[in-house]
Amino acid sequence: MTHSWTDWLAEQAAEREDAGLTRRLRARSADDATIDLAGNDYLGLSRDPDVRRAAADAALTWGGGAGASRLVTGTLEVHAELERELADYLDQESALVFSSGYAANLAIVTALADRTAHVISDAHIHASLVDAARLSKARVTVVPHSDIDAVREALASSAGARTLVLAESVYSVLGDAAPLVELAEACAETGALLVVDEAHGIGVHGPGLVATYGLAGHPNVVVTATLSKSLGSQGGAVLGPRILREHLVNRARPFIFDTALAPAPTAAALAALRVLRARPELSGMVHDRVCTLADALGVVPPDGAVLSIPMPSPQAAVAAQAAVLAEGIRVGCFRPPSVPDGISRLRATASAGINAADWERAVDVLVTVVKDHQ
Amino acid sequence: MTHSWTDWLAEQAAEREDAGLTRRLRARSADDATIDLAGNDYLGLSRDPDVRRAAADAALTWGGGAGASRLVTGTLEVHAELERELADYLDQESALVFSSGYAANLAIVTALADRTAHVISDAHIHASLVDAARLSKARVTVVPHSDIDAVREALASSAGARTLVLAESVYSVLGDAAPLVELAEACAETGALLVVDEAHGIGVHGPGLVATYGLAGHPNVVVTATLSKSLGSQGGAVLGPRILREHLVNRARPFIFDTALAPAPTAAALAALRVLRARPELSGMVHDRVCTLADALGVVPPDGAVLSIPMPSPQAAVAAQAAVLAEGIRVGCFRPPSVPDGISRLRATASAGINAADWERAVDVLVTVVKDHQ
Repeated sequence: MTHSWTDWLAEQAAEREDAGLTRRLRARSADDATIDLAGNDYLGLSRDPDVRRAAADAALTWGGGAGASRLVTGTLEVHAELERELADYLDQESALVFSSGYAANLAIVTALADRTAHVISDAHIHASLVDAARLSKARVTVVPHSDIDAVREALASSAGARTLVLAESVYSVLGDAAPLVELAEACAETGALLVVDEAHGIGVHGPGLVATYGLAGHPNVVVTATLSKSLGSQGGAVLGPRILREHLVNRARPFIFDTALAPAPTAAALAALRVLRARPELSGMVHDRVCTLADALGVVPPDGAVLSIPMPSPQAAVAAQAAVLAEGIRVGCFRPPSVPDGISRLRATASAGINAADWERAVDVLVTVVKDHQ
Repeated sequence: MTHSWTDWLAEQAAEREDAGLTRRLRARSADDATIDLAGNDYLGLSRDPDVRRAAADAALTWGGGAGASRLVTGTLEVHAELERELADYLDQESALVFSSGYAANLAIVTALADRTAHVISDAHIHASLVDAARLSKARVTVVPHSDIDAVREALASSAGARTLVLAESVYSVLGDAAPLVELAEACAETGALLVVDEAHGIGVHGPGLVATYGLAGHPNVVVTATLSKSLGSQGGAVLGPRILREHLVNRARPFIFDTALAPAPTAAALAALRVLRARPELSGMVHDRVCTLADALGVVPPDGAVLSIPMPSPQAAVAAQAAVLAEGIRVGCFRPPSVPDGISRLRATASAGINAADWERAVDVLVTVVKDHQ
């Protein structure tokens, strides 16, 4: 008896379809007028004129790609410049840039943890860190969300093994902040290393929460970042001591065996970083907007740029998303199984990149539609 | 007793240093005049004027980044266009673009194989496929390089499990081609799926070896590709039936949880693809060059764009690389443990992007230096 791949793929597709879970890609046009409250361009810097120009100039100067992996001939001066300025802004000794945040997370975990290590992972951690822990083959302990006692208990069970604790500064789905000071303290006491993914922290909280809390340079704390959210580009980074960077350059397979980030997105991230430093008020603007929206909806304001709006059922969430879209506004929609607590919700990004009139309209529409679907 | 991360990193660095294995990044300037025989820009398309212009225009039109994952609002019309034209050129039903070739390889393997599956992997396979097989948690059988009997034996041991066979059309280090027709036949007989990484095949062999051998559309063969080698940009792709693409969109975590490839590298790959289709003679030029170089060095010509030049010792390889660089020419150098057969070698790319005078000089220098270091 032989297995048929075609049959298996068809069965999988039928199961998805029956469960109403089939997802499809929809291509966006360059002149799409929909107001985007679904993406992660928190500061609107992807479309900033300086960022576009910098990306275009880099493509004209350097070409379409970097031509090789970073260790061969793929490291360009623009990578080095971005790494210096990122490290400086985040108050870290060094930075290493990757082609994605997913790659940065795979790299840090797999280069530090092997099957003799212990990885303690928050239950709400991003998929890239879950995959990273799996790939490392370390013993993994998943602890309840932001439960510092559970982390301490897991740390006590490490028995001298090299231990990593994985957290996000601001979590993606619920938008809540991690107890970073307590986590760093617990790690320092036991010699563990806290890996903080600042994907949703940088830009929204200036240089991120690790820097804001004075934990940058802490010997038990390292940071990962994405260049694709507040920095409006593509790519990821790891930030920490120089010796960690050198370790990753020599050991991290997702760094060594990957082509370098292309010139245009590298230069775009660098330009966005400079805009952010020149206009720190952008972070405050996101915060004000998300609080306004939360207030209008009677929802607790999040620590990040994204407001999670609980809905009474998956059907209500989907219907509300469609109603909002009919008004020319796109929001996200999370349903089981992709919500950590089983509660369906709309997800609305309070981006500083939306113009004032559009933003006001979006708030009005959301308030009306959410009320209609309770 | 607590473990110290700082001490551990220092120990690791000292071990590398003692073994002479520390690798360092060197940043390249935009006006670097070194002749590059180390990169993977096989057709020189990264620096093609049309490619640069297309990347720059895309950055100006769309912005620095795609703003979200593909399933949220990150799919742009330029992604859809690239996917249509890639599929058309490679004679496949559909294509799905990723932010890297590494991500494409992780995606196809982990979305198709779980712990109940069997992955049969060639011993020379790229690190990204090794990592993909690990992450899938499938049973993995590593077979000797291009040994079709060993593959058949491993297939016979699958006992009805979903089985993937992993190969590259042209292998990276030795530059030899896989026995694709025999592998596809063995897979068809047993219902396994052959995953062919065309990273070093596309462009060098027109639409790649799968298409050249008439295997495109074969029910037991799918293709992965990079956009960062012959296509002079960044990113990766999976090519195969529409139902496979839909499966990846819904299931592949490295696709779902990653920001979409930025506009500039997407447009760069599309422009490069169009140049390649308009100038099929570029593939022949690479082939002619690599044969000329192989002939001048008395080495067997490879199936790809990269010539592997065996050296008598790791020291001789390093000294020869330095001597070539002193003449303004950069080649790669592989030493144990990163060579599959323990033989140190220089690695020279016969890129069609090097101008004729530089290429002739590079050949002369290489012949002299290699002779001096035998």
